[in-house]
Amino acid sequence: MSGAQDLSLLFEPRSVALIGASDRAGSIGGYALQNITEHSDFTGDLYLVNPRRTDIGGRTCWPSVAALPATPDLAMLAVPAPDVLPALQECAARGVRFAIVFTSGFGETGEEGKALEAQMREIVAQSGMRIYGPNCPGLTNVNRRLGLTFSPAFKLDLLAGPIGIATQGGGLGRCLLQAMQRGIGVGVWTSAGNEVDLEVSDFIHHMAGATGIEVIATLLEGVRDGARFLHAVRHAALQRKPVVALKIGRSEYGRRAAQSHTASIAGSAEVNSAVMRQMGVIEVDDIDELIDTAALLARARPGPAEKIAVFCSSGGTAALSADMIGSAGLELAEFQGRTRAELAGLLPSFASATNPVDTTGEIMRDLEAMTATLRAVVSDPAVGLVLYPIPLEYGPVTQVVAESVVRVQRETSKPIVAVWMSDRLGAGYDVLVDGGLMPFRSVGKAVKAIARWVAYGQWRLRADATAVPEPLQLSAPRGQALPDVSTEPLAKAWLAGHGIPMPAHRLARTLAEAQEAAAAMGWPVVAKVASADVLHKSDAGGVAVGLRNADELAQAWERIHHSVAAALPNARIQGLLIERMAPPGGVETLVGVHQDECFGPVLSVGLGGIHVEVLKDVSRRLLPIHLDDARDMLRELRGHAILRGVRGQPPRDTESLARTLVAVSDLVTAHHGAIAELEINPLWVGAQGQGVLALDALAIPSGDHAT
Amino acid sequence: MSGAQDLSLLFEPRSVALIGASDRAGSIGGYALQNITEHSDFTGDLYLVNPRRTDIGGRTCWPSVAALPATPDLAMLAVPAPDVLPALQECAARGVRFAIVFTSGFGETGEEGKALEAQMREIVAQSGMRIYGPNCPGLTNVNRRLGLTFSPAFKLDLLAGPIGIATQGGGLGRCLLQAMQRGIGVGVWTSAGNEVDLEVSDFIHHMAGATGIEVIATLLEGVRDGARFLHAVRHAALQRKPVVALKIGRSEYGRRAAQSHTASIAGSAEVNSAVMRQMGVIEVDDIDELIDTAALLARARPGPAEKIAVFCSSGGTAALSADMIGSAGLELAEFQGRTRAELAGLLPSFASATNPVDTTGEIMRDLEAMTATLRAVVSDPAVGLVLYPIPLEYGPVTQVVAESVVRVQRETSKPIVAVWMSDRLGAGYDVLVDGGLMPFRSVGKAVKAIARWVAYGQWRLRADATAVPEPLQLSAPRGQALPDVSTEPLAKAWLAGHGIPMPAHRLARTLAEAQEAAAAMGWPVVAKVASADVLHKSDAGGVAVGLRNADELAQAWERIHHSVAAALPNARIQGLLIERMAPPGGVETLVGVHQDECFGPVLSVGLGGIHVEVLKDVSRRLLPIHLDDARDMLRELRGHAILRGVRGQPPRDTESLARTLVAVSDLVTAHHGAIAELEINPLWVGAQGQGVLALDALAIPSGDHAT
Repeated sequence: MSGAQDLSLLFEPRSVALIGASDRAGSIGGYALQNITEHSDFTGDLYLVNPRRTDIGGRTCWPSVAALPATPDLAMLAVPAPDVLPALQECAARGVRFAIVFTSGFGETGEEGKALEAQMREIVAQSGMRIYGPNCPGLTNVNRRLGLTFSPAFKLDLLAGPIGIATQGGGLGRCLLQAMQRGIGVGVWTSAGNEVDLEVSDFIHHMAGATGIEVIATLLEGVRDGARFLHAVRHAALQRKPVVALKIGRSEYGRRAAQSHTASIAGSAEVNSAVMRQMGVIEVDDIDELIDTAALLARARPGPAEKIAVFCSSGGTAALSADMIGSAGLELAEFQGRTRAELAGLLPSFASATNPVDTTGEIMRDLEAMTATLRAVVSDPAVGLVLYPIPLEYGPVTQVVAESVVRVQRETSKPIVAVWMSDRLGAGYDVLVDGGLMPFRSVGKAVKAIARWVAYGQWRLRADATAVPEPLQLSAPRGQALPDVSTEPLAKAWLAGHGIPMPAHRLARTLAEAQEAAAAMGWPVVAKVASADVLHKSDAGGVAVGLRNADELAQAWERIHHSVAAALPNARIQGLLIERMAPPGGVETLVGVHQDECFGPVLSVGLGGIHVEVLKDVSRRLLPIHLDDARDMLRELRGHAILRGVRGQPPRDTESLARTLVAVSDLVTAHHGAIAELEINPLWVGAQGQGVLALDALAIPSGDHAT
Repeated sequence: MSGAQDLSLLFEPRSVALIGASDRAGSIGGYALQNITEHSDFTGDLYLVNPRRTDIGGRTCWPSVAALPATPDLAMLAVPAPDVLPALQECAARGVRFAIVFTSGFGETGEEGKALEAQMREIVAQSGMRIYGPNCPGLTNVNRRLGLTFSPAFKLDLLAGPIGIATQGGGLGRCLLQAMQRGIGVGVWTSAGNEVDLEVSDFIHHMAGATGIEVIATLLEGVRDGARFLHAVRHAALQRKPVVALKIGRSEYGRRAAQSHTASIAGSAEVNSAVMRQMGVIEVDDIDELIDTAALLARARPGPAEKIAVFCSSGGTAALSADMIGSAGLELAEFQGRTRAELAGLLPSFASATNPVDTTGEIMRDLEAMTATLRAVVSDPAVGLVLYPIPLEYGPVTQVVAESVVRVQRETSKPIVAVWMSDRLGAGYDVLVDGGLMPFRSVGKAVKAIARWVAYGQWRLRADATAVPEPLQLSAPRGQALPDVSTEPLAKAWLAGHGIPMPAHRLARTLAEAQEAAAAMGWPVVAKVASADVLHKSDAGGVAVGLRNADELAQAWERIHHSVAAALPNARIQGLLIERMAPPGGVETLVGVHQDECFGPVLSVGLGGIHVEVLKDVSRRLLPIHLDDARDMLRELRGHAILRGVRGQPPRDTESLARTLVAVSDLVTAHHGAIAELEINPLWVGAQGQGVLALDALAIPSGDHAT
């Protein structure tokens, strides 16, 4: 099923049937009934279904869905596992649009449960009714004060807000909701458990279009369907709603645990991260970072180049915070002269009136002075965000500090990021929470969130300047088939035809042809065996380099034919590929495209030698890419300095390299679906102006991995 | 002054004079008086000094220190800044041992204040009285319930415990103390402000010897005196007391801010970190990590190879936690069959009875079952520590969880690291705190602390097997002077004499000598100009490589003399150094020793080419080192795989390389104080069994940096 279906009636049904309604204390049906009748503002029609009761608490009970007086938009199933499938069938037959299945005892219990889930999917496929669950707590639409959930905690977590949360399991989702304690409001939460049909991606897509939701936070144990995920996050990007994601599966332990928990395939952590970065999805490392980053983005959207002010009344804390800002690669704002003069007038002479600002403790008891000082900093045009660490609870003094922060935050749209560093809470903390400041609890975590906020502003700038990326998997029609690329000459001819620069080369079937070709292109040359039967040319003795004249070429001709015949007696040899040697002193790079099983074609580039193999220094993108993306990819390499020119070497022709990456992207797009793998290794990169040269290349058509 | 003086009477004075005693509300003298009389268990003699009063609250006031009936061990100064120096002089004259100066208005205010601090140091030098401060809150000896401080917060932070804290500024120190709210007890806290005399290192040294202190946490804006710091942390290591440190100054912003705050020189972050790692000091990245790591070490000491169990009742949280354990490079324990069987008997069939353990929510309400399950995990011999993330506050259910944790922790010395992930606290949280569990607040921070705990166990193993390192700066007498090493032949001869392997080489003064030498050592050879006046031989055309016979050598002889004469007409040329070429296919490394201005001689090793310059992949140690250290240094390199042999290359002779590092260490030790800089670049490393060869070397004697 496409994930792009309108889910509004799931989140805001006009009518709901509760199948398995109950007034038994502690039962799922009982909690669900209480949540919708006592703790929700639900004004639609509610139908209770329970064949063993005629009424519950004065409300009519119907014996079945079929017997209902009207068809509900949504059915919630709180019946025992054996009754779930019949009830779903009944709902589907009645034309119900959405069904939430709370009941557990399915896929999570083993093979039998998985078979039952397959039957649920069958119902979806045949009826079009969408299923949410099973084995899930349901969903919470806080902004409408609507609990379609049996969770007894629903009534405790009702602070509305602009954040939408999409999780798989329930525990971590509820953990995120409890950030409401810090004043972080959450508008919608979904937790679809075993996700037989509707899954995290569908909810991201829905939230991207939902009024009242401005930021989406998601926790992924695995991406079940890459296209659905890409579609969802792209939709969010187009709606200008940031998506913050925590993805389990960076280590082998995590991959195994996620798989055993939700049967998700974690995929390659490197590809996952590259895809998220490319699509503007903000990847975080921990649960608290997920909600913190989302909350910061909900408070204010970053511009393209935000700089930070540190404001503090403790010199050590100011120094520590500035240090962490620097280590995170962020920039401290340089105050204007006017700001510095204003601060100098407000602060004691030994305070720091530059960034980081250390007011010293002297003026901390003076609300007006603290407010004026902070206001001066926030008003400086160079400042995009203020980091305000509060190292300790000091009773009324800290309360003054907190009040000044709340006061200045009310006057400005620039975020003031307050950090309550102490384990002791107090009145000042409450002032911050009540004032909407959503205090962080550690400087390090605050700086991480700020770094992500700044990076999102940079991504947004790029997306606005060009476009939100649209990966091939979403957009591209199946392209042309590949020509015969089974030998190096054929692969090279094909690549050259698509704008990949090559050294002069010619397939020679006789020695005379070879010598003539070499003389025409200029010595020295390389000679390589041309045969679809020789995969590893060097291993078979099929390569000779640095041939300086006709004699050396003649010797090489003999030697190669002899070696290959000895190594692979059955290989059919077409001749030798004669190729002009690349000039000395180039840098070797490696460019490849492979099909990620989740996300489709991925382009990789790295420096040759140890960089890719030993140092794992690779930059990746989903295709297609634009020239700016290609330049970014090169800049992202840790070894980028080598391309800029180190140790007396000239700068490399990175522009030609970037253009070649785009040419590869165009080529793969034109043959979308037809290429299993493409590798140019090495791609020689000359000094600026010398261009690049594909020295060896290999292309494997789809469905043909064996050749 | 040496930092090793006995400070017991500062921390536990038998008698104290409070100079500037007061009963004025809110005054420094008033608070200090209250703290010692009302909130401390001080049973010694207390003398109040205030010339304007005869008594305060019934206690006699003396007009001056000179007038006191006896000499106090300690004087606390709460007088205005202009009165501080006269009071200090009076104390020194009276024979007072220690003076705490609360008063501010000195070095932190500018040059005038710095001059006054110089006078304080003068008093210390002449009298032997030690000064603590000025511009500081004093110190807190919680384990003796003694507040030698004016801080009105003293009375709030009185949970005794095994952690000693040494900070410079007061704000962050108090922040650390407030971790008492989580049940983390702190025995002693020092915060000596401007540190004119006693400094952080002195307090670390003291705490290392102090009864009741088991772990030391310190926050450093800069290390003022490297030897004092090394002495202190070495003493702590010998006393088996871990030191956890947060050092400001990793980024340029931090270095600048720390310098403006406490006038500390931050030094090289890389050298600082290397020194700490070598000395077993556990470096952390944030304030909360400082106290968290110290608290974990205070709860239990790690063995040499601890493995982790993850225990949780939420599948997603278990998967996330396992993922983070893996990403941190930690190992999950593999349960014994008996443990797995026991868990299978206790848990529902769809729970995870392997590591990570997911009990599922089913049994969470059952205290006995939760206790038995956790007990089974803790009892597994493979488990060294249990990470127990609690994702949310769920009222009585979470309380049951917390009670089971506390119960099992009482039965075992293995630490159970509970993480209270929710922003909502509750009864379960209080149960954990009261039960001594010191809950963490984020999984990521818990995993970082665990990783440091495990690493400390590994360091301890090494220190126990060999010895706690004793850097040259602490121990070595000044060594022999350097011979004349002003030319490459002289430097090489000297190095060869100290066991650094060299290619065959000879200084030739005539072409005939050169040809004879080359023939004797075997072609091909390298020829290099030998002249104390030619620093950059290649730039002056003074090097020729790959000379294959007498003719080529003759041509090179002419060419080199000609080029050098053209480039440097005044250079006095001694001849050419003729050297056997290293065999092809080696790996080039770079070995250097430099004098760190804070810590003395530092040995660095890295791979040649881009590794050091571009990738900053360098391993460092204070000298001297042992063979095991040398092996560790090589293993620490990110590019270590290159030495192990990649891309079809054979493994390198890392043992010879390690032995050569030790030879360099011995050499520098023998000439301690005489070498400003030493560099072997490149040091060629052959395949296993081929050894290493110093191809070029440079030594600069101390005090002779200009040559």
